[in-house]
Amino acid sequence: MDSVWFTQTQTARLFTAEEPLRLAQGGELGPVDIAYETYGELNAEASNAVFVCHALTGDAHAAGYHAGDKRPGWWDNLIGPGKPVDTNRFFVVCANLLGGCQGSTGPASANPATGRAYGLDFPLLMVADLVACHRALLRHLGIDTLLAAIGGSLGGMQVLEWALRHPGEVRNAVVVAASSELTAQNIAFSAVARKAIMADENFHHGQYAAAGENPDNGLSIARMMAHITYLSEDALTVKFGRELREKDRSPGFGTDFQVESYLAHQGEVFLERFDALSYIYLTRVMDYFDPFSEPGATDAVRERPVNWLVASFDTDWRFGTPHSRRIVRTLERAGQPVTFREIPSPWGHDSFLLPVPRYHDTIRAFLDHALEAALGEGVDARGAVVTPVGVAAGPKALREDLQILADLVPDGSRVLDLGCHDGDLLSHLIARRNCTGTGVEIDPSAVLSVIRRGIPLVELDIDFQLDEFDDDSYDVVVLSRTIQVIRRPQEVLEQIARIGSRIIVSVPNFAWWGHRLRLLRGRMPMSKELPYKWYNTPNLRFVSLADIELFFAGLGLKIERRIPMGIDGEALRHPFGANLFAGAATYVLGKR
Amino acid sequence: MDSVWFTQTQTARLFTAEEPLRLAQGGELGPVDIAYETYGELNAEASNAVFVCHALTGDAHAAGYHAGDKRPGWWDNLIGPGKPVDTNRFFVVCANLLGGCQGSTGPASANPATGRAYGLDFPLLMVADLVACHRALLRHLGIDTLLAAIGGSLGGMQVLEWALRHPGEVRNAVVVAASSELTAQNIAFSAVARKAIMADENFHHGQYAAAGENPDNGLSIARMMAHITYLSEDALTVKFGRELREKDRSPGFGTDFQVESYLAHQGEVFLERFDALSYIYLTRVMDYFDPFSEPGATDAVRERPVNWLVASFDTDWRFGTPHSRRIVRTLERAGQPVTFREIPSPWGHDSFLLPVPRYHDTIRAFLDHALEAALGEGVDARGAVVTPVGVAAGPKALREDLQILADLVPDGSRVLDLGCHDGDLLSHLIARRNCTGTGVEIDPSAVLSVIRRGIPLVELDIDFQLDEFDDDSYDVVVLSRTIQVIRRPQEVLEQIARIGSRIIVSVPNFAWWGHRLRLLRGRMPMSKELPYKWYNTPNLRFVSLADIELFFAGLGLKIERRIPMGIDGEALRHPFGANLFAGAATYVLGKR
Repeated sequence: MDSVWFTQTQTARLFTAEEPLRLAQGGELGPVDIAYETYGELNAEASNAVFVCHALTGDAHAAGYHAGDKRPGWWDNLIGPGKPVDTNRFFVVCANLLGGCQGSTGPASANPATGRAYGLDFPLLMVADLVACHRALLRHLGIDTLLAAIGGSLGGMQVLEWALRHPGEVRNAVVVAASSELTAQNIAFSAVARKAIMADENFHHGQYAAAGENPDNGLSIARMMAHITYLSEDALTVKFGRELREKDRSPGFGTDFQVESYLAHQGEVFLERFDALSYIYLTRVMDYFDPFSEPGATDAVRERPVNWLVASFDTDWRFGTPHSRRIVRTLERAGQPVTFREIPSPWGHDSFLLPVPRYHDTIRAFLDHALEAALGEGVDARGAVVTPVGVAAGPKALREDLQILADLVPDGSRVLDLGCHDGDLLSHLIARRNCTGTGVEIDPSAVLSVIRRGIPLVELDIDFQLDEFDDDSYDVVVLSRTIQVIRRPQEVLEQIARIGSRIIVSVPNFAWWGHRLRLLRGRMPMSKELPYKWYNTPNLRFVSLADIELFFAGLGLKIERRIPMGIDGEALRHPFGANLFAGAATYVLGKR
Repeated sequence: MDSVWFTQTQTARLFTAEEPLRLAQGGELGPVDIAYETYGELNAEASNAVFVCHALTGDAHAAGYHAGDKRPGWWDNLIGPGKPVDTNRFFVVCANLLGGCQGSTGPASANPATGRAYGLDFPLLMVADLVACHRALLRHLGIDTLLAAIGGSLGGMQVLEWALRHPGEVRNAVVVAASSELTAQNIAFSAVARKAIMADENFHHGQYAAAGENPDNGLSIARMMAHITYLSEDALTVKFGRELREKDRSPGFGTDFQVESYLAHQGEVFLERFDALSYIYLTRVMDYFDPFSEPGATDAVRERPVNWLVASFDTDWRFGTPHSRRIVRTLERAGQPVTFREIPSPWGHDSFLLPVPRYHDTIRAFLDHALEAALGEGVDARGAVVTPVGVAAGPKALREDLQILADLVPDGSRVLDLGCHDGDLLSHLIARRNCTGTGVEIDPSAVLSVIRRGIPLVELDIDFQLDEFDDDSYDVVVLSRTIQVIRRPQEVLEQIARIGSRIIVSVPNFAWWGHRLRLLRGRMPMSKELPYKWYNTPNLRFVSLADIELFFAGLGLKIERRIPMGIDGEALRHPFGANLFAGAATYVLGKR
């Protein structure tokens, strides 16, 4: 896996003075050169292209080694032969951003009008301008449609912009540790960084190159501060704690603590590879990014859905989970197939660059399915992936209680399956019954196999996070054998009634005769349905069918059907005395 | 409450060139002038003095107005007539720190050796040096012992240092939003701030005053960055969101967003009132503070306990709850009476300066009790407050089930009461049975009255945070009618067995005949003991006496006594068939 392979940066002139790039804010820019690298082979149908968008300070050299490199490209742990973005199967493209300083045209490039660096005369850019260059590069490479675009942080913003505005060009969009709108805190940090650069005596209003100087103090202060925000507090503690550099030295204002020495080093090496003007331009690009605020922002993807994978890291405090959830919520509301995971990782925002196993497994599962679907029969005339391949390959026979549930779902419904486990019900409904839908699950072992099957899945806590889903956004909401692990059944049922037109709930019956008998003997009930001891059961709520029917009535939910089931999940042949004889029951509920 | 009252700053020369201050790191400093203010009247016994320690950029002007002030002192919402630190009852002293720049001797003061500012020749300070000046000021004012010392952030660090090293001088210590050791992240932010100041072209190696200049850019960058860390992300979002300053202006690198304009203003006004040298010296004081790392750090307070109130704010990400918990844990292990609260407040670290009601109520309750105890009979020969006044005033009669518990506790025990509600049991044990102890409670309405009664109380989640308490640190741990709301009874019982020598647990019995009867009728049990419906009960665990006795055995706990109780908490006269007839039971458990 970690064999050394070599890559090279190329440059393409994508816009000229005569045919300039038209900028999102108005104005033009030309010539525009873009530096890029490619890995792997484009297949004959040009259907295996993956575009990698880099973050604030990245470059085109994402993977492999350049001759003389001590270290490989910045995302080499993710991209390469046999890796999640497998260069044996995908054709991978990565380009240095417009506005960057590593081969692409940016504010440090020569302004043809003056012959010296643009400096602050370079136009202010928007994420759309970065994407415009990526799109021009694709045309240059003879590619119409991407199998996937993938990016973290500012890279994820480019993916979001691209897929939202041009969904026909991006079948699958992977947006990691990104944001659809910076918070005031995010903007504040960048503002201080820019102030440090622009207040440096060597900045010379951006014409420092002409003066033969560099605003090194300002840029290293900016980098040091940003670096703090890239790591979690715990990560810094684990790495450095309060260790002193030299125990015997008397305290002063130098780099007494290890963390100070580390930061100073980060600030210094950054000067060798990055330009202060690119830093102020590209941070401002992020400040102004706000794609969902525009009218009709999701019109294009409503017309032509994209398969989305959105991921965040639990310790990221730069673009943490609330940023990703905002993206997921908005895409959900636009009817998109969205998969979302919050990945546990101690390393903060930087995690998106690190080989966190659950993160890499998730990307691998998502892309594997995307490729199979694109190569297989699951692509419709518009190029959109419509049928999960795992499903098309034939799902296993449904468990009897799930078959009972499935039979209650009308053909062609949009289904939200809360507590979907490994996705059997949804898989069946999508493959056999022309449904669409989303699973909700929080058990990580189940989540991965659902993603691998190409079923959209949102990882969230049913008790507290159902407000992710819009009013009346699903035809059917299923809550199968899950109510007993919920802490707040009333709030959850109210949310479900808000989200779905029809509700299907299955409930284990605590008043089953076997349980009553055990309690009569003075012990807490246990059974196949309730297999745990009282102190370690995940089941927190115990309810009889008689109780739950009163509960439904109290919430204004009408019982349209009740199907009592045996203790093994089978339909009861004689559905009398259900509260005594049923081990469980399935209800179809409607709103009054 | 908000009447305008006037205050004045005075200055005292506390050390001279002949009798200099001996510094913690070695070396001497003299002369030392300290600026201070006092509010209220010292009583005849000099027993009502409260010392207020300020944070990084505060000053002696804590409350009231100076002539010409538009705004009152920095802690005026807390200190004043009728306020929590009530100047009608307390004599309040606040001093500008050594090393500061608002009347006290600091690095910008004239160095007698050169006649110009000390600059970087000023000695590096430790928190102990700041406290040495406070102590000298007290002697100057004729005060031996403080009723209380109180401070937030760096102010709390001074209180911690003072009370740990000189517990005879501080009866009650209030430590808010502080830390006993900065994390790598804390140090990193300060390192960047110092770099911004010291890299400023106008810093002139600290001799900027002589050059007639000021490192304004560096100091304002430092302040802007620090200001971001003082506020929570949510607070910034609520205050500014993504609002632009002028909607029509085209984007640039100025203060386009409201938050940028606010920060720039914060940086600017700070220049008028603060000195760059003080900033670098006082941030370094914080970096090096680590009182618990010293050998014998808690020896003095073990000998002579101090009443501690430690408080944190849930959105503080500079010195958040983990910092306060570390202090609490260490003091707990030293057998101190410690009260701890985590206060919900949206405003981040800045909350300690704001009139957050639960925070102010807590300080008021703690200080009210401290004063009553000092004025009343509850002070022992050493001056330590030993008997809570609310208790001495005579507690109400105990509820019958609590009386059963109390009778099981040996006289003179150290008792940890998990789920102590309003503290009746502890109050009784302390007043009547010569016990000491700590309550644990999470219901905010109960917490305040416990604090007002002078009973140490740690606000924490029994399910997840019992590792706050040291092995074998209590004689008796009581868990009264609380096991049913615990999610992880096994882990909690294991923790309890680790903490206490003897365990007293009372448990409601789910197998009481009345519950069995109701389930036989097909409904979930409800009663006085289980008064809730299945979907809204805080009770998550249902257990019969038969089950729990097996559970205790499985954990290696020996049942030393079992006292079955009726459904109303009364002792049963005929304790036969307890699993059927008892509504609850109390167990005394020992370790095998």
